[in-house]
Amino acid sequence: MATWNNAVPTRKKMHMLKREALLREAIAAFNQKGFHATSLDDIANSLGVTKAALYHYFSSKHALLYEAFSEALKVGFEAIDKAQEQGATGLEKLQIAIREYLQVTLSEMSRCIIITEEHALEAGDREKIVEQRDRFEAKLRDFVREGIQDGSVVPCDPKLAIFSIFGAVNWVPKWFSDDGEWSNRQLAKGMSELLCRSIASRPPEALARDIGKIRPDIEVGA
Amino acid sequence: MATWNNAVPTRKKMHMLKREALLREAIAAFNQKGFHATSLDDIANSLGVTKAALYHYFSSKHALLYEAFSEALKVGFEAIDKAQEQGATGLEKLQIAIREYLQVTLSEMSRCIIITEEHALEAGDREKIVEQRDRFEAKLRDFVREGIQDGSVVPCDPKLAIFSIFGAVNWVPKWFSDDGEWSNRQLAKGMSELLCRSIASRPPEALARDIGKIRPDIEVGA
Repeated sequence: MATWNNAVPTRKKMHMLKREALLREAIAAFNQKGFHATSLDDIANSLGVTKAALYHYFSSKHALLYEAFSEALKVGFEAIDKAQEQGATGLEKLQIAIREYLQVTLSEMSRCIIITEEHALEAGDREKIVEQRDRFEAKLRDFVREGIQDGSVVPCDPKLAIFSIFGAVNWVPKWFSDDGEWSNRQLAKGMSELLCRSIASRPPEALARDIGKIRPDIEVGA
Repeated sequence: MATWNNAVPTRKKMHMLKREALLREAIAAFNQKGFHATSLDDIANSLGVTKAALYHYFSSKHALLYEAFSEALKVGFEAIDKAQEQGATGLEKLQIAIREYLQVTLSEMSRCIIITEEHALEAGDREKIVEQRDRFEAKLRDFVREGIQDGSVVPCDPKLAIFSIFGAVNWVPKWFSDDGEWSNRQLAKGMSELLCRSIASRPPEALARDIGKIRPDIEVGA
């Protein structure tokens, strides 16, 4: 129900904004210090609220971790949809999927790749996440197979290709910093080009010499 | 001093063997469950000894972690030395360095890449490790620059190239299993070829279609 001419967020919207802020703060802490070394007290302190207030949004630290993984995988499946819509060849699809996944997960909104902490998930949660992740990886391997079929990808082992390429992608949160010299768009573009070149049948003769100088406002085809 | 015609290991050798067994067990546990979730009791139980016995070899769980990182970096610098001896071009050197690093770190002797746990190091230890790691990465970037100079590598951003390639390498312990379908030699060869292809100026027209079928006994030039 709209009040104040919608000049202020609704209660529902406020709840969502706070929940997102909490999730982002938690993910940042998990990425930096690790899941076990992070306490809900730390997170509450960083947000300037009480620990009790956090329980309105998440029932436990484990629930935060589960949500972070779910978010990352949701972004992954959206990247695959976009790749399927926009890519003409298997290689193009893979490149779009990597670029989209990186760009969104590294954006301030949901930098949620704390995939190194999967051992910290509770058993039931882990099962659900692993099932989704396997499905995500299978889709990516299908892009590689499609590329071998259509000639855009050289003969290769699709399993090794995706393990290698997504290993590099999963590692990014370990070194990427929002306030560093590269933007998330520059990185997403430069890295998807470089990684896809490893299996491309017509590899570009040059890559960006300086990722920081890629014009991130220009969308470049795969 | 030799006794029993050297039919049994010396005390010094016994100490070293036990120390290595302990380190391997600790690394396996850190990789699987994470540093914080692993207790010295767990490690002692797995080895069938008392926790007190462990203190003959390492003063603390943190000392084990520090040793694991030191080992991984030692292997890294040895891989670089080998690359410098055997590689003719920048690209060959990089490929040899990756192959050697993977092969040794994944071998049963010292599978010690728990690099995701660096936040768990104590401050003084972390400083030493980060200094060494930076030096290691600088050497690898130099191989890329050398390759651009000698024409074996396409124009690219050496920083992004090494972040990407070694991200993939660092991720391997997350999914590689000793008793899986691939041997560490097969993986080391297949993965170093695939990753180096991303920046090679004369990329091979095909990669191994099935990593499990690479003949691991044959040493293939870079």
